[in-house]
Amino acid sequence: MNESQAGNGVGRTAAAIAYAREQQDAFLEEFKALLAMPSVSTLPEHKEDVRATATWLAARLNELRFEQVALHETAGHPVVYGEWLHAPDKPTVLVYGHYDVQPVDPIDEWDSDPFTGTIAGDYIIARGASDMKGQLLAHLQALRSLAQAGDYPVNLKILFEGEEEIGSPNLPAFIEAHRDMLACDFVLNCDGGIHGPGEPAITYSLRGLAYFELELRSAAKDMHSGLFGGSVANPIHVLSELIAGMHDAEGRVTLPGFYDKVRDLDAEERELLAQAPYSDTEWLRISGAKKLHGEAGYNTIERIGARPALDVNGIWGGFTGAGSKTVLPAKATAKLSARLVADQQEGDVKGQLAAYLNAHCPDAVTWKLTEHVHGPGAIMNRKSPYMDAARRALSAAFGKEPFFKREGGSVPIVGMMQRQLGVDSIMLGFELADDGIHGPNERQHLPNYFKGIETYIHFLMDLERVAASSAVGK
Amino acid sequence: MNESQAGNGVGRTAAAIAYAREQQDAFLEEFKALLAMPSVSTLPEHKEDVRATATWLAARLNELRFEQVALHETAGHPVVYGEWLHAPDKPTVLVYGHYDVQPVDPIDEWDSDPFTGTIAGDYIIARGASDMKGQLLAHLQALRSLAQAGDYPVNLKILFEGEEEIGSPNLPAFIEAHRDMLACDFVLNCDGGIHGPGEPAITYSLRGLAYFELELRSAAKDMHSGLFGGSVANPIHVLSELIAGMHDAEGRVTLPGFYDKVRDLDAEERELLAQAPYSDTEWLRISGAKKLHGEAGYNTIERIGARPALDVNGIWGGFTGAGSKTVLPAKATAKLSARLVADQQEGDVKGQLAAYLNAHCPDAVTWKLTEHVHGPGAIMNRKSPYMDAARRALSAAFGKEPFFKREGGSVPIVGMMQRQLGVDSIMLGFELADDGIHGPNERQHLPNYFKGIETYIHFLMDLERVAASSAVGK
Repeated sequence: MNESQAGNGVGRTAAAIAYAREQQDAFLEEFKALLAMPSVSTLPEHKEDVRATATWLAARLNELRFEQVALHETAGHPVVYGEWLHAPDKPTVLVYGHYDVQPVDPIDEWDSDPFTGTIAGDYIIARGASDMKGQLLAHLQALRSLAQAGDYPVNLKILFEGEEEIGSPNLPAFIEAHRDMLACDFVLNCDGGIHGPGEPAITYSLRGLAYFELELRSAAKDMHSGLFGGSVANPIHVLSELIAGMHDAEGRVTLPGFYDKVRDLDAEERELLAQAPYSDTEWLRISGAKKLHGEAGYNTIERIGARPALDVNGIWGGFTGAGSKTVLPAKATAKLSARLVADQQEGDVKGQLAAYLNAHCPDAVTWKLTEHVHGPGAIMNRKSPYMDAARRALSAAFGKEPFFKREGGSVPIVGMMQRQLGVDSIMLGFELADDGIHGPNERQHLPNYFKGIETYIHFLMDLERVAASSAVGK
Repeated sequence: MNESQAGNGVGRTAAAIAYAREQQDAFLEEFKALLAMPSVSTLPEHKEDVRATATWLAARLNELRFEQVALHETAGHPVVYGEWLHAPDKPTVLVYGHYDVQPVDPIDEWDSDPFTGTIAGDYIIARGASDMKGQLLAHLQALRSLAQAGDYPVNLKILFEGEEEIGSPNLPAFIEAHRDMLACDFVLNCDGGIHGPGEPAITYSLRGLAYFELELRSAAKDMHSGLFGGSVANPIHVLSELIAGMHDAEGRVTLPGFYDKVRDLDAEERELLAQAPYSDTEWLRISGAKKLHGEAGYNTIERIGARPALDVNGIWGGFTGAGSKTVLPAKATAKLSARLVADQQEGDVKGQLAAYLNAHCPDAVTWKLTEHVHGPGAIMNRKSPYMDAARRALSAAFGKEPFFKREGGSVPIVGMMQRQLGVDSIMLGFELADDGIHGPNERQHLPNYFKGIETYIHFLMDLERVAASSAVGK
């Protein structure tokens, strides 16, 4: 980029935005192509689909004139990487996204094919539309719009992983092995959301996650419920008792030590959170839930963003087919996970669960606890120059000042980047709470998606004014 | 049958038994052929297999010179019927059996193919080997052995149904429509068991069954556990709480009114039951359970035979695949069933469950209770001439006096026959408690199976001495 281009930032922004608006139909077709790839990372039968998606993204980076574009192999799915480093003295942004998606079950609750982007009014419906192929592609389309008018305003490194939905098991090792390659001033993490179509927001806190499978076994094999019912322990009953005992009457988690490290909200932050455009009615609408329910002493915004939670994500045991089978099962299994807030340590939960089971599991059954995955939460600096640039970009694109929010979901990569690269992330994504991510009929609000492209354009152009930190030293 | 044959009962019995012993290899091959037919009544994909099994049995009845042999259509699977009524002034026995079997899941816990009769030592392993293709075929093979020496000693009507494992939904209507055809002095029900290979027993009490599906729903669709976890009710938690609350600390069922009609054991019957060759060690071995568990104040024999039980037979909700999915489910479902003793009414349980749910289900979820099936229990007269004949037959075949037992399982047909035809049943079957019925690796003890054939021969020949009751009036 030369000086005359840099001096014409406003004109370049306007030109890029004009291009993006002209290209909306083409961008939407490209979105559909990406949604058609079933990159379900947790299911072995989709392994090649995941790779094909990575290959497709690498081709897009090449088109954008990125360098060092490659699929980096891991023990699981590949990492897509590319860089453009021709803006001396400007910040270096590491753009993070994930191209994998959740499974589609319960498939019979979808109204259209999960891997066909189906337009319905202002929405496009497909698995991954919101989490997060939409945000990821919006960023690439913002870069394409900027590329029409010359070089990029800042240094860019792009890292798209294919294992976020299974807890990024191989990403820490990849980051550790490529610390120099990934060095940056901050991470632009596109895997975030805003409150509503007209309500821009910046997430500055994420919950951590620890996910387990608990199996109880009472006998060598299933029995006949008539011959044995009432004379031996039923592992479904025992599992139910254990799950029921994991919360007290106040909705608090009873695992020993679970709250010991939780950072309490202070009055200032409670006031900040209270400014969110939230209503119970709206929360019921977007969740589809019948009634609110949670820890006593906190409101919903606080329960979601600043308080930990423990949920059973799945349960099964005995006969689950159609009709009746009079079996007394020998085992019962649950998947359960904790959402953690600062300063809880995700590695502590397994021990807390084990202590609970040791104290409460009757000796008529044996238990086995397996940790599937855990990942850190994070709290970010709300006052950095990059956060300021994000605030201005959202304000420009949405015509409204964003508010700061705490997010209930987990984006473990943010905490990993803090620990491994020593940098904060800026969460700039456009998911809506009623997009139905992880569930049936996941959707993306299209006006929001197009505003997202414009936000990324504003953000990158605004960063041109920010000096690179000494940490990267380009 | 003519007078000279009747006067030669001892010789005819010996001849039939000698024939049965010569034919053991051929009988075993025939057993394998019957086991190879996957007559799983609850699974629609096996509908034609169920019918093929019925057709196979009808062919056997024709070979045995039965008349009126037919497959009677029902709303579900067919009833096989045939009769032989050429023994004037002798009792008329209605022989009951079922030719359907339970599903085979969990299929991965079988050591051999469930529909290939696999010999292992003294056992043959296959679905239905014990429950109850073994007993059903043993009876037909006893008839074949008797048929070698002339006519049958008593009048015989045979009814084999194909829906016992799904609760005989169409049998009551069939019986009602064929009351004259089915008129008899008593029912010989071959669907029973004995205590051990050397321990003959006669069952005089059966538990009733009421089987339900309970579905809880908290929201319109599944949610993301990060975005919503801790702010809305989790239906798996609620279901767990409800299940946990269905028993108190004493192991008693808490459904309102559940024990109101239960007939208490008196001292005489407790003493009779205590004579069973039972040990806790043996019960643990045959159940495979780690520890005994049940209602306080009763021993295992009493818990199984004379006390009701409530068991969850299956549970499912949320994500149950491999790996992790961070879903907050919208619904959770359980199959649960009650085992009932005299004088509980199987039709009462749904109201008791509904009352429990109304009292305890939080209003954050809605519940839906569906009854799959219910069937009556029964208590039979231990002092009838038919019971005496059964006792003598077991004594002759096993060389040991049988004892009287209460059975924990349900054979609803016994109660139905009492209500609809006004006759008791004699339970004369040879299942063992460790046959693994309804579970993986179900098996039949072969020496027991061959003794069963001999018992049926003794029993029918012994009945020749008993006069027909006036109720049938042949």
